[in-house]
Amino acid sequence: MSVFELGSLRFAVEHRSVGDDGGPTVRVRAPAKGDRELLRFDCFERGAHFHVDPSGADAITPLAAHVDAIAWCLSELRRDLAGYLERAGYALPESPARDALDATLARVEAEMRNPPIDFDDLDVAALRESPGEKWALYPADVLPAWVADMDLPVAAPIRRVLRRSVDRSYLGYPVNPRPQDLPTLFAARARERYGWKLRPGRVEVITDVVQGIYVALQQFAQRGEGVVFQTPIYPPFFDAVRETQRRAVESPLVAGAAGYEIDFDELRASLDPGTRILLLSHPHNPTGRVFTRSELEALAELAVERDLLIVSDEIHADLVFSGHTHIPIATLGPEVEQRTLTLMSASKAFNSAGLRCAVAACGSDALARRFNELPRHTRGGINALGLAATDAAWRHAQPWLDRALRHLEANRDFAAAFLAERLPQVRCFPPEATYLAWLDCRALGLSPSPYEFFLEHARVALSDGRRFGKTGEGFVRLNFATSRAILTDALERMARAVDARA
Amino acid sequence: MSVFELGSLRFAVEHRSVGDDGGPTVRVRAPAKGDRELLRFDCFERGAHFHVDPSGADAITPLAAHVDAIAWCLSELRRDLAGYLERAGYALPESPARDALDATLARVEAEMRNPPIDFDDLDVAALRESPGEKWALYPADVLPAWVADMDLPVAAPIRRVLRRSVDRSYLGYPVNPRPQDLPTLFAARARERYGWKLRPGRVEVITDVVQGIYVALQQFAQRGEGVVFQTPIYPPFFDAVRETQRRAVESPLVAGAAGYEIDFDELRASLDPGTRILLLSHPHNPTGRVFTRSELEALAELAVERDLLIVSDEIHADLVFSGHTHIPIATLGPEVEQRTLTLMSASKAFNSAGLRCAVAACGSDALARRFNELPRHTRGGINALGLAATDAAWRHAQPWLDRALRHLEANRDFAAAFLAERLPQVRCFPPEATYLAWLDCRALGLSPSPYEFFLEHARVALSDGRRFGKTGEGFVRLNFATSRAILTDALERMARAVDARA
Repeated sequence: MSVFELGSLRFAVEHRSVGDDGGPTVRVRAPAKGDRELLRFDCFERGAHFHVDPSGADAITPLAAHVDAIAWCLSELRRDLAGYLERAGYALPESPARDALDATLARVEAEMRNPPIDFDDLDVAALRESPGEKWALYPADVLPAWVADMDLPVAAPIRRVLRRSVDRSYLGYPVNPRPQDLPTLFAARARERYGWKLRPGRVEVITDVVQGIYVALQQFAQRGEGVVFQTPIYPPFFDAVRETQRRAVESPLVAGAAGYEIDFDELRASLDPGTRILLLSHPHNPTGRVFTRSELEALAELAVERDLLIVSDEIHADLVFSGHTHIPIATLGPEVEQRTLTLMSASKAFNSAGLRCAVAACGSDALARRFNELPRHTRGGINALGLAATDAAWRHAQPWLDRALRHLEANRDFAAAFLAERLPQVRCFPPEATYLAWLDCRALGLSPSPYEFFLEHARVALSDGRRFGKTGEGFVRLNFATSRAILTDALERMARAVDARA
Repeated sequence: MSVFELGSLRFAVEHRSVGDDGGPTVRVRAPAKGDRELLRFDCFERGAHFHVDPSGADAITPLAAHVDAIAWCLSELRRDLAGYLERAGYALPESPARDALDATLARVEAEMRNPPIDFDDLDVAALRESPGEKWALYPADVLPAWVADMDLPVAAPIRRVLRRSVDRSYLGYPVNPRPQDLPTLFAARARERYGWKLRPGRVEVITDVVQGIYVALQQFAQRGEGVVFQTPIYPPFFDAVRETQRRAVESPLVAGAAGYEIDFDELRASLDPGTRILLLSHPHNPTGRVFTRSELEALAELAVERDLLIVSDEIHADLVFSGHTHIPIATLGPEVEQRTLTLMSASKAFNSAGLRCAVAACGSDALARRFNELPRHTRGGINALGLAATDAAWRHAQPWLDRALRHLEANRDFAAAFLAERLPQVRCFPPEATYLAWLDCRALGLSPSPYEFFLEHARVALSDGRRFGKTGEGFVRLNFATSRAILTDALERMARAVDARA
């Protein structure tokens, strides 16, 4: 139970099961009156209702099935708290200030919408039934730790809005655009989290970040022109350059004392006059680097100097661990922003890659115009559930993400400690972001490759380092977004396979 | 309750509510033993389980929550019917033939997956809460009968698979392609319904039919080249031609004695040497025409003669009323097929436009290659729920569609009779397909336009005929895919508004 005080009132939120029903309850109490319960809103899944004066006259009002109970209750409390209390026989000594009421109700809402969750309570049998590629593509004795999906259950606010859409057949054409649409919500969130003041009118909703990369390469460069990126890299970067018939310019990261670093001399030398685009992965997949302000400034300076457009895949921006801060490269200043297309999505941090909804923030009207010279309908319609899920994620699911990040960070630390003790020849810089660990297995000399070795002998499916470019030879990428038990099982299998080889 | 006999056995399906749970039940009975109940599978939403010998020893086995209960029960009956019966103390006199068992279980499954549904039981208040554009874009006193979404609840098999995906967080990257993937399912369905033997390898999954049109125009014609289509026409045809900078060649349908007809002389005359594509809407939106074999043959002959590619939007193919048959134009022969791209989707007939999943069937490898020269990722990823819904629709929801079609046809006939009696000056050929009626209101002389007149004075939002091209002036399109009560209300409002004007 979570309790929030506001003047003479106390708001208590708990998540209840009552008979065959259940859901969040908020009680409004009066501590000065022996903590008497004045109001109770039971926002249950099936039979939502509210009580006025539940300890006394107890007038119960059911809510119609089509009403979003949590939203309705909070809007009623916001609209007429004093009136409801009066009906419960309680005269509010003084009305709370609007700001204080709003702040308290926001905390009540966050608590109501995000029930407690145990990320370690995963059922492998259920995961194996998943139709998604992570669990479906390998035999049943293999633990999958490859594609960047989490095994964690999706946040309650997202599942709630989707369940509602399904139950009520809200599967028709979505409103697009609408007054409180995704670009506006994205812009508000970008401002709050990154101090990034972007214009909603320059934000395009797209199906996924990879689509954004393909469209950007087609619209911002000509055939044969160069696209530079840091390797090892997320494999679709290579695919996008090849399939759009642009030219890959690889700039390998170098392993420094504390982690992977950009070799700016090498980068500068690699740029030829035909290079048009800096394609950035930030935070960087697969190394988990969160580029610092000085690194980003040096990249931006180079982009300005060589007149490069920046296409920045920042899909992991919300998965940054303690001690690090994500800085969108577009926030470095107007000269940088106007040449930057930033790609983001709720799908990575909120674990809904299959819902296909992302945003492309164009740094200038000119960039937006060029991006949209490929007609929007050629990019395809955005599905109603992806839109609804993204809205719910950004509006309501931050408490879930905060908890998920703590779980992921603990898993990261556990994996690092495990590797140090049991597989000391595997070198890994703990990622600063993402739930992916880039494991240098070269010292083990695994044959024919670490990917094949661990798949065959450990029955663990990792991502093959070779798919991330030439500098990925001898590496694998480990996905640690799962329960501690499954992660431990995967690491134990890997350690035993290496031990057995000796 | 539905009963199916198989040799000495009787399968009875019913849909039950038991306490706080419910769902389909199938009982296996032995008529020769006093109709004794031998097996019972309760495929309930929450606590699915089955009974062996429920009238006797009654051994109950619960099913794990992650199991798809209906699929599991049927596969068990298919695998080992005799074994289950033996456990219930019943020796099967002779095992049914595999074909007969499969056929019976298919009927049992269809019944289990498609509970009874009353399409007239719609709640306007709930519809008004819908976030979709149909109900959201007009004020609350307006009845929407415009965009081609149905008000009917989505089929149970679709909602079931979506609810399962949401409840179990199956929202990650889908498998694509997979062994039993959508192109294969589509090809099987096309063969069964239309005798169309198409190759799954030439079927592309796309987000929506409109995307297919845009991509086809870009890939199959150059800027400035002509695209011919029959007007009045679905407005995105105009948009697609304009936004891809191709050139519209309009071929107006003419009102014959029995309905709209193609004027082949006019069509032939309109084709100039720069015309590259025949963009067909078949069944035709907004007139509801199902083109006959001879009409299609004449179109195809012209396409061959003038070397036109055919892009055929057949999204309404599953919404054809009694007395008419949909013939995909690609089935007219190899010479036609090889120049035809056919666009279809489950989304129109199964009322899930917001889920964004469609198919583009290329009539030759060469056409598929040209279509895919725009990289697939530029078209964007297909969302996991759209894929799952389409799979469920085509595999399991035909009984729902059969019922929906009967409802729509009755609504069509009701609307036609209503108009003849109450609005005799409105001319309308009852549509042969679609749930859209194309109303010629010119004789009424409504000002400033029928769309604006009915919106203002009847508070009914129709589709404005002018959006369908010059020949739509004086027309509106009425969407009758709703309950009889809502349809009656809309028509009454329209009739009263016209009466009040006089």
